[in-house]
Amino acid sequence: MSDDSVVRPRPEAAVTLRPASGARIAGGFWGDRQRVNREVTIPLGGERIRESGAIANLEAAARGAGGEHRGKVFADSDVYKWLEAVAWERGRADDDELARSYHEAAGLVAAAQRPDGYLHTHTQLTGREPYSDLASSHELYCAGHLMQAAVAGSRALGDDTLLRVAGKLADHLVKDLPAGALDGHPQIETALAELYRETGVRPYLDLAARMVTDRGRRRLPLKGHHGPGIRQDRVPLREAATVEGHAVRAVYLAAGAADVAAETADGDLLAALARQWRDMVATRTYLTGGLGSVWYGEQFGGPHELAPETAYCETCAAVGSVQWSWRMLLATGEPAFADLMERTLFNAVLPGISLGGDRFFYVNALRVRAGADPDDRRAAARGRQDWYGTACCPPNVMRLLSSLGHYLATGDAEGVQVHLYASGTIRVGDVLLEVETGYPWDGRVEVVVRQTPDHPWTLALRIPSWAEGAGVEGQPADPGYHRLRRTWRPGDRVTLDLAVRPRLTAAVPRLDVARGQVAVERGPLVYCLEQADHPGVIVDDLCLATNPDPRDGTPLSGLPAEVVPVLARGRAHVHRADDAGFPYRTAGAPREPEHEGPVGLTFVPYYTWANRGTGPMTIWAPMH
Amino acid sequence: MSDDSVVRPRPEAAVTLRPASGARIAGGFWGDRQRVNREVTIPLGGERIRESGAIANLEAAARGAGGEHRGKVFADSDVYKWLEAVAWERGRADDDELARSYHEAAGLVAAAQRPDGYLHTHTQLTGREPYSDLASSHELYCAGHLMQAAVAGSRALGDDTLLRVAGKLADHLVKDLPAGALDGHPQIETALAELYRETGVRPYLDLAARMVTDRGRRRLPLKGHHGPGIRQDRVPLREAATVEGHAVRAVYLAAGAADVAAETADGDLLAALARQWRDMVATRTYLTGGLGSVWYGEQFGGPHELAPETAYCETCAAVGSVQWSWRMLLATGEPAFADLMERTLFNAVLPGISLGGDRFFYVNALRVRAGADPDDRRAAARGRQDWYGTACCPPNVMRLLSSLGHYLATGDAEGVQVHLYASGTIRVGDVLLEVETGYPWDGRVEVVVRQTPDHPWTLALRIPSWAEGAGVEGQPADPGYHRLRRTWRPGDRVTLDLAVRPRLTAAVPRLDVARGQVAVERGPLVYCLEQADHPGVIVDDLCLATNPDPRDGTPLSGLPAEVVPVLARGRAHVHRADDAGFPYRTAGAPREPEHEGPVGLTFVPYYTWANRGTGPMTIWAPMH
Repeated sequence: MSDDSVVRPRPEAAVTLRPASGARIAGGFWGDRQRVNREVTIPLGGERIRESGAIANLEAAARGAGGEHRGKVFADSDVYKWLEAVAWERGRADDDELARSYHEAAGLVAAAQRPDGYLHTHTQLTGREPYSDLASSHELYCAGHLMQAAVAGSRALGDDTLLRVAGKLADHLVKDLPAGALDGHPQIETALAELYRETGVRPYLDLAARMVTDRGRRRLPLKGHHGPGIRQDRVPLREAATVEGHAVRAVYLAAGAADVAAETADGDLLAALARQWRDMVATRTYLTGGLGSVWYGEQFGGPHELAPETAYCETCAAVGSVQWSWRMLLATGEPAFADLMERTLFNAVLPGISLGGDRFFYVNALRVRAGADPDDRRAAARGRQDWYGTACCPPNVMRLLSSLGHYLATGDAEGVQVHLYASGTIRVGDVLLEVETGYPWDGRVEVVVRQTPDHPWTLALRIPSWAEGAGVEGQPADPGYHRLRRTWRPGDRVTLDLAVRPRLTAAVPRLDVARGQVAVERGPLVYCLEQADHPGVIVDDLCLATNPDPRDGTPLSGLPAEVVPVLARGRAHVHRADDAGFPYRTAGAPREPEHEGPVGLTFVPYYTWANRGTGPMTIWAPMH
Repeated sequence: MSDDSVVRPRPEAAVTLRPASGARIAGGFWGDRQRVNREVTIPLGGERIRESGAIANLEAAARGAGGEHRGKVFADSDVYKWLEAVAWERGRADDDELARSYHEAAGLVAAAQRPDGYLHTHTQLTGREPYSDLASSHELYCAGHLMQAAVAGSRALGDDTLLRVAGKLADHLVKDLPAGALDGHPQIETALAELYRETGVRPYLDLAARMVTDRGRRRLPLKGHHGPGIRQDRVPLREAATVEGHAVRAVYLAAGAADVAAETADGDLLAALARQWRDMVATRTYLTGGLGSVWYGEQFGGPHELAPETAYCETCAAVGSVQWSWRMLLATGEPAFADLMERTLFNAVLPGISLGGDRFFYVNALRVRAGADPDDRRAAARGRQDWYGTACCPPNVMRLLSSLGHYLATGDAEGVQVHLYASGTIRVGDVLLEVETGYPWDGRVEVVVRQTPDHPWTLALRIPSWAEGAGVEGQPADPGYHRLRRTWRPGDRVTLDLAVRPRLTAAVPRLDVARGQVAVERGPLVYCLEQADHPGVIVDDLCLATNPDPRDGTPLSGLPAEVVPVLARGRAHVHRADDAGFPYRTAGAPREPEHEGPVGLTFVPYYTWANRGTGPMTIWAPMH
C-alpha cells in the first residue's frame, strides 16, 4: 500500500487529522460495490464517453485541426473523471485492461494539449479565445478535473503522464489567466490545491486561494433570470452564512476553500465554512444527505424547503458533499462531518447507480407518485437511464467508489481514527489494522491489530449519531469517537456493536413536508416504500398502523440476498373526495371508514429502489 | 342595461343556462373592488402599457415603418386586455376619461392594422413572415385578445371600431392561416367563438373548432426540454383524461373548447372537458382554486403535487379557470362549476392585486418561509410588484373585474339562477332582481323581486358546498341550487343565510403536503397566517392548540375595517435540532418542551396578505 490518498495535506497544513497512509477495502458491502464499479461501470463508462464524442474531441484536438466539437462544453471533464476512476481502480487492482485504458486515454489527453499548455477541446475546436467566456465555458472546471485525474495517476500508479499535462496547464493558468478570472462552475479550487500538494508548486495554491477570495463579489455575468447567488457570486465565502445557488457548485467551492484554509492555516475561512456546513445540515439537507431542492438552476432552496417529490438531490452534489465533509473532518476532527459523509454515501451517492452498475440517476427524487405526468421531465418514474447528455454524475460516482478506501480512516499524534466501517485493512504509520464486518446489514465490527508500535496509542472508533445502544467490548459507547488508549499487541481484537436495527425517524416541526410522517432507517441506511413490494395497493395510500412494530424481514426476490428489508404493520387510506371530487373537506368530520384493513408494509433501502421496475415510492410514510 | 354579457351563446347553442341579459354590481365587496379597478388599476394600466413600449409598438406599426419592437412578442395583448377592461368598465360607468382612453387606443389599433387585415406589431416591426413561427410568436394569442376587446367594445359601448379590425384580422386568418396551424399559446379559440357569436360569421367558429380538433397531435415543435404536453399538444382534447402542461394555456384552451362544444352541440367534447375539469379539481387544484404547481414551464404538476411553498398559481390561470368554469356552468347547470368559480375569484384571482389596486402578484405562493433566499426569484417574500416584464396578469384581472357582473346569474326556461352574491341588480328577460348583501363578511343575502311576469317561475339560489347550516326563508337549504317556484310579485323578498363562520379545512390523505395541518376558511374565503399579526414569533413555528376555537375577530389596523379576521388559540413550536443541527431525530423521543406557551393566532383572508409588508405566511397551519 502506497500513500495514495485522494486528499493529502502538506506536512505544514493546519489539519487535526491526516488521512490514513493506506487503506484497502477487501470485501463486504463496499467491496461488492467496488467490484461492480471495476467490472461493469468503469468499462461501460469508457464506452459511453467514446460514444458521446468526448474521446473524438480529444482526438480532433490532438490532430490540431479545428472543427466540430461534440457534446457539451464540459465533455472533457467526463473523460477526466473517468480517468481518475481508472487510475484509483488500477491502483487497487492489478488489471491489465485498466492499465491499457488508462495509458491510452492519458496519452490522448497529452496529445490534445496545445504546446503552450492550454487544453480545452471545445475552445480549441471552435477556435474561441481561451478564457473569454469563463462564466459558461467550464474551461477551468475541466482543467480541475484533469488535475484530479493527474494526481490520481501519480499517486495510484506512479505515472506522471497526466501530471505533466496538468502542470503545464496549471502553469498556463498562473501565467495567462486574466486577473480576477473565475469559472462559472467552481471545481478547480480543490484541484489546484491538490496539484500543489502533489507537486509543491506554490503558485497553484495561491491561484486557488485567489479564486476563493475573489468569488462572491458579483463580478460574474448574470445567468438567465438568476441572481449572482446561483454561481456563489453574491456574497464572499468568508462572509456567507449558508450555502446557496447551484448545489454542486456550492459544495465543490466549499471543498476547495477547505483545502485552501488547511494549507494556508486560515482559521477565519475554516470557521466560515463550518458555519455554512452547519446551516446546510440544519436547513437544506434531505434525510438521505441529498442536497438541492430546486429544479430551476439545480439549486439549494430556502431553509427547510425539502419537498421529497421535487427533490433534486443531484448525484454530483452528494459526491461533492462527501468531498467537503471529508476536508472538514480532517481540519477539525469533529464526528458530525463523518456522520454526514456516511449518510450521504449510502443514501445520496449510491442511489445514483443501479445495483448492476449500468444504469444511473442524475436527479434523486425521494417520492414518486402514482399517475405522474408522462410528459414531466421530472418524472423519476421514468426510471434510471443508460447515460445522460450531461454525464457528470456517472463518472463522479465511479471515481468516488474507486477511491472510497481513502475515506475510511485517519491518524494523528494520538493514534488512529476509524470513521467508516468496511472490511479491509487500514495503515496509519506503523499501525496496520484489519477490519471485518457485515456492516451495514449487521452492526458488528471487528477490528484486529495486525501491526503496532510498542508504545501506547489511541484507537478511536466513530459511533454514528443514530447508534443508540452501541457498545465497544461490551461497554456502552456514546455517539462520537469512542477512544481506547493502550499499548496494543498484534492480534488484539476490538469488537464494536453498532446496534443496527430498524428505527422510525421524524423531522423537526419546521420541516413541514415531513409533518405527520416518519421514515424508516436501519443503521446508516434510509429506507423507502416501493411499489414492487405492495401489489394490489398504491404506495401513495399506505400509512403505518398505530403500533407499526418495524422489524427485519427475510430476503426479497429481485434484490441481493444480503439486503435486509424492514417489515412493519400498516394500513391503506381509502382514497376518496367529496361528490365534486374536491380534495379538501371540513376538518374533524371524516367519513368512515378512513382506512382499509391491515397491510403489511415492506421497506427497502432507498439506494436499492428502481432496480425492480419503477413506480410510486416514498421515504416518508404517514403515521396514520 | 343592455345585453352586454362577456359570453353570449347563440340562440341555437346547446347550453342549459344562458347568462343574465343584464347584471350590475352596485356596491358591497365586489363593488369596492370594481371601484378601485376603475379609479386606480385601469388608469395605472394605461400608464404602464405606455411605459412598456406596447403603445409605441402600435404607433410604429401605424406609421408603417419597421424598426425596433419593445417588450415581449405578446406585448400587443397587454393593450388589448386593457382595452377590454376599459370597454366593460365604460359600459358600467359614464366616465369621459374612460371613453377617451378607449377611443384613442382603439383608433391606434385600427391604424396599426395592415391593409390586408394582418395585425401583430412584433411581426410587422421586425419584418418576419406572418404565421411563420406560431409556436412562439403569440400572433394568434394576441389576435384573440384583440377579438375579445372588440366584442367588449361592441357589446358594452356599441362601438364597432375594434370589431371591424377584429373581423378583418379574423378574415385574414380564415383565408391565409396555413392548414393545421396552431398557436403555441391557446387563447384565440374562445375569442373566435365569441367573435362568431357577435358577428354571426360562421367561419370564425369553424376555425376555432378546427384548432380544438387539430391540437394534441404532436405537430407543434418541441420547446426546450419539454415534451409536447407543455403546449397541450400531446393528446387530443377529446381523449385527454386530465389537464396538463402550462396551466394558463390549458384552461384557455378548455374555455375555447367549451364554447365550440356549445355552439356545435358537441356532447362528446363537452363530456371530455367535464372529465378533465373534474380531474383537475380532484388532483391539481390548490385550496384557493389556484392552478399550477411547477415553476418550470408554469405547469400543472402530477396528481396531488400541490406544495404550498412552490405553488405557481399564476393569476392568469385563475382568470382562465373562471372563464372555463363559467362556460361549463352554462353548458351543464351543475353547481360544482359555480363553486369553483367563487373559490377562485376570492382566493386565486383577487390575491393577484393589492388592496390599493396598484401592485400585483404574478405567482401566488401559498406559503412563504422565514429566511427565504434573497437571490431566489421564487421568493414571494419580495412582495407584490409594480408591474411585470411579462405583464399578462394585471390587465387580466382588470378585464375580469370590470366584467364581473356578467358572471352573477343566468336564466333558463324555468326562471333565474343566482350563482354569485353581490349587491346590485340582475335582469333575466322580464325579471329584475335586486340583491343586497354584506357577503362575504356576512352570510345574509336579500333578494328582492323588482319586476316579474305574472306567471310562475323559479328562483334558484346557489348554496355553496361549504355552506353547512345554510337557510332560505328560515328553512334549511342544502348545497346546490335551492329552488323557489312561485308566482312572484314586485316587492317579494327572499332571505338567504349562508352561515358564514370560521371553519377548519383538511385535505385528503393523498395530499400529503397538507398532512397534519388545517386551513381556516370563512364563507368563501381562504385565510392565512401572516407575519404582520404575530410579532415576537415566526409564522413558521405556529401551530393550533388542541382546542383552537376559531372565532371572528375585530378589525385589524392596516386592513380595511370590513375585513373580518379569524382568531384561534395556538402555540409556537420550539425550533431546535440535535447537537449537530440535523433536523431529523428518532420518532417518539421528543425533547421537552416541544411548544412554547399559548399564542393567539390571527388569520386574515389570503387575498389581503402582503398588503402590510411581506414576510412569512402560510395558509396551512399545523394541528399540533
